[in-house]
Amino acid sequence: MGAVKPIEYRDASPEVRAVFDDIKTSRNVPDVNNFWKHLAHHPATLKRTWDSIKQVMAPGALDPLTKEMIYLAVSVSNGCAYCIASHTAAARKAGMTDAMFGEVMAVTGMANETNRLANGYRVPIDEAFEQ
Amino acid sequence: MGAVKPIEYRDASPEVRAVFDDIKTSRNVPDVNNFWKHLAHHPATLKRTWDSIKQVMAPGALDPLTKEMIYLAVSVSNGCAYCIASHTAAARKAGMTDAMFGEVMAVTGMANETNRLANGYRVPIDEAFEQ
Amino acid sequence: MGAVKPIEYRDASPEVRAVFDDIKTSRNVPDVNNFWKHLAHHPATLKRTWDSIKQVMAPGALDPLTKEMIYLAVSVSNGCAYCIASHTAAARKAGMTDAMFGEVMAVTGMANETNRLANGYRVPIDEAFEQ
Amino acid sequence: MGAVKPIEYRDASPEVRAVFDDIKTSRNVPDVNNFWKHLAHHPATLKRTWDSIKQVMAPGALDPLTKEMIYLAVSVSNGCAYCIASHTAAARKAGMTDAMFGEVMAVTGMANETNRLANGYRVPIDEAFEQ
Amino acid sequence: MGAVKPIEYRDASPEVRAVFDDIKTSRNVPDVNNFWKHLAHHPATLKRTWDSIKQVMAPGALDPLTKEMIYLAVSVSNGCAYCIASHTAAARKAGMTDAMFGEVMAVTGMANETNRLANGYRVPIDEAFEQ
Amino acid sequence: MGAVKPIEYRDASPEVRAVFDDIKTSRNVPDVNNFWKHLAHHPATLKRTWDSIKQVMAPGALDPLTKEMIYLAVSVSNGCAYCIASHTAAARKAGMTDAMFGEVMAVTGMANETNRLANGYRVPIDEAFEQ
Repeated sequence: MGAVKPIEYRDASPEVRAVFDDIKTSRNVPDVNNFWKHLAHHPATLKRTWDSIKQVMAPGALDPLTKEMIYLAVSVSNGCAYCIASHTAAARKAGMTDAMFGEVMAVTGMANETNRLANGYRVPIDEAFEQ
Repeated sequence: MGAVKPIEYRDASPEVRAVFDDIKTSRNVPDVNNFWKHLAHHPATLKRTWDSIKQVMAPGALDPLTKEMIYLAVSVSNGCAYCIASHTAAARKAGMTDAMFGEVMAVTGMANETNRLANGYRVPIDEAFEQ
Repeated sequence: MGAVKPIEYRDASPEVRAVFDDIKTSRNVPDVNNFWKHLAHHPATLKRTWDSIKQVMAPGALDPLTKEMIYLAVSVSNGCAYCIASHTAAARKAGMTDAMFGEVMAVTGMANETNRLANGYRVPIDEAFEQ
Repeated sequence: MGAVKPIEYRDASPEVRAVFDDIKTSRNVPDVNNFWKHLAHHPATLKRTWDSIKQVMAPGALDPLTKEMIYLAVSVSNGCAYCIASHTAAARKAGMTDAMFGEVMAVTGMANETNRLANGYRVPIDEAFEQ
Repeated sequence: MGAVKPIEYRDASPEVRAVFDDIKTSRNVPDVNNFWKHLAHHPATLKRTWDSIKQVMAPGALDPLTKEMIYLAVSVSNGCAYCIASHTAAARKAGMTDAMFGEVMAVTGMANETNRLANGYRVPIDEAFEQ
Repeated sequence: MGAVKPIEYRDASPEVRAVFDDIKTSRNVPDVNNFWKHLAHHPATLKRTWDSIKQVMAPGALDPLTKEMIYLAVSVSNGCAYCIASHTAAARKAGMTDAMFGEVMAVTGMANETNRLANGYRVPIDEAFEQ
């Protein structure tokens, strides 16, 4: 009573299959990840989330690798085990090297440290930042 | 009883002044930000934090702009008002355009959303991510 | 050196057994969850937490199902794996349908996204909200 | 260098005005909140966020008041000052009484407490929750 | 519509006044802090929270200063501005020196950094910690 | 594609071995924990993190036990499973009794609860805390 089971393509409704097909085509992969197989329990969330991810992660002013590294940094900061695993894989696929991974972790770690130092010392925002 | 006052250069110990001087030289700025003026109350933390930031944020496998955008994304995710203000300014100084800012925010927002969807649906990590 | 073992009823002190008995009676269950068996290591925390939960989760201006869904949403947002599992089960027992679960997740996800967009864009609070 | 200014209707592009118009019509309000005036700097994010919010917050298996209280609980848990103010107002408009507000806060507080007790005592998930 | 006003002693119900009186007597202060004046809107939460705080913060295996510094560290980590201000003041009143404050901040900062490094590198728990 | 493997002493570079040796000597242990074996993938992060930890956790105005309990409280609050396990072990080694552990958890839990009550009731900071 509680655990959600993945929905496989063969058991999916046409509405869900259409999203799965679009993911597989867009990413050129034979199957979708567990994330999508679980969201499939709520087709509106599945479709909305995929449409949003497709729009947000598309190349734009930032390239896909930079976007994946930002996604990874946030997921690490939030401690989401699934997202850390999936976005480490996605960032590596997009070209993240070992050295880049090390630097993403170092920046994420320092940001978390200085965020708390700024909180604790109750640092007022510099006027120069307000303009 | 509680609020920490900034320590200005003129009132700083030689130990603190040495760090302030290094920040001003390294960043080519006339004065240090409030963050450093508050850390100055604990010189060991001031020096260690600055040494770490200087190392971590130096150009490496990632360029300074990418690092600043990751720093900003983490600070936004953590809700640190001071750090959001200071790292937005730093990222803009390093070349972040309006369009880049918009995309950093969009990725940060989506990551926070899907982190929770993965948590809530209790999605197991795909075997492919474990290798 | 570190892992806490559950305390079973047969090994519990009278003080702990009294709380376990009250949980079992109040919830009409044959045994208490692992959460309570671990808190039993600190009887004052066990009793205080149970007394607080019993008061807070009782029917009032909000019905128990609504309270359980709010509890679940917060637990998902915080990424507490145990609490997500236990409060998904509790909410389902209180009547949460699959469709309701999907909507709780969708709202929780969107709130986490827009919380960060509001942080990142540094949106000032509207005067209308201050009154 | 950093602060984002709101974009008012009179200064908005047709693309932004279309979203503003839809918000005003859907919510029957004379003007949009500061949140939307800031997102207007990135029209794709403005439109995507509004479309998502409109879908997610529409009446469904849960009524709008329940959704607003969940939104508020998550925002309180995350400490987003803007979102706490705006969703307290929205929940009150949807019918949240003083007593309901008090109970949302009480549940949110307890969830945050027990989430950490479960973390700290390293409580393993009960088998009953896994089925 | 949204902002909560403090309830002063003169306007409080007998139920609220009883809690206010107990806080003033226990802490030997002429008036209660804003925190309690706001919780007064929900007397059950006011009483329960005060009773819990009084029990949890009493001298026990840990002295009050240590407890206040832990409270401060958690509040800094969570970024709660009110709680940082109030628990800095409380810790100072209990004997926290400038040097102690500096060390609490340093430890809090490092914990936040290494928490994320452990997340990001997906470090498995050592067997030695499981016993 | 994603999981990081630990680097054992026998496979480590001289640079990494030097840090491992210092950890083993400073802590008088036969081997380093998994945390350090994973950071070893990025020697600059390994060295910087160890140097910082050694400085921050050294006896000063606060004793090592107090520092470990603060570290544990923050890790519990952030939900970092690895850090909770490792710092529970470290705190016990430094002298944390069962009763102390129970009180650290109780304070951490209450702080997380009242942090959210302060957020939700939007409590303004008392003037007395600002001085």
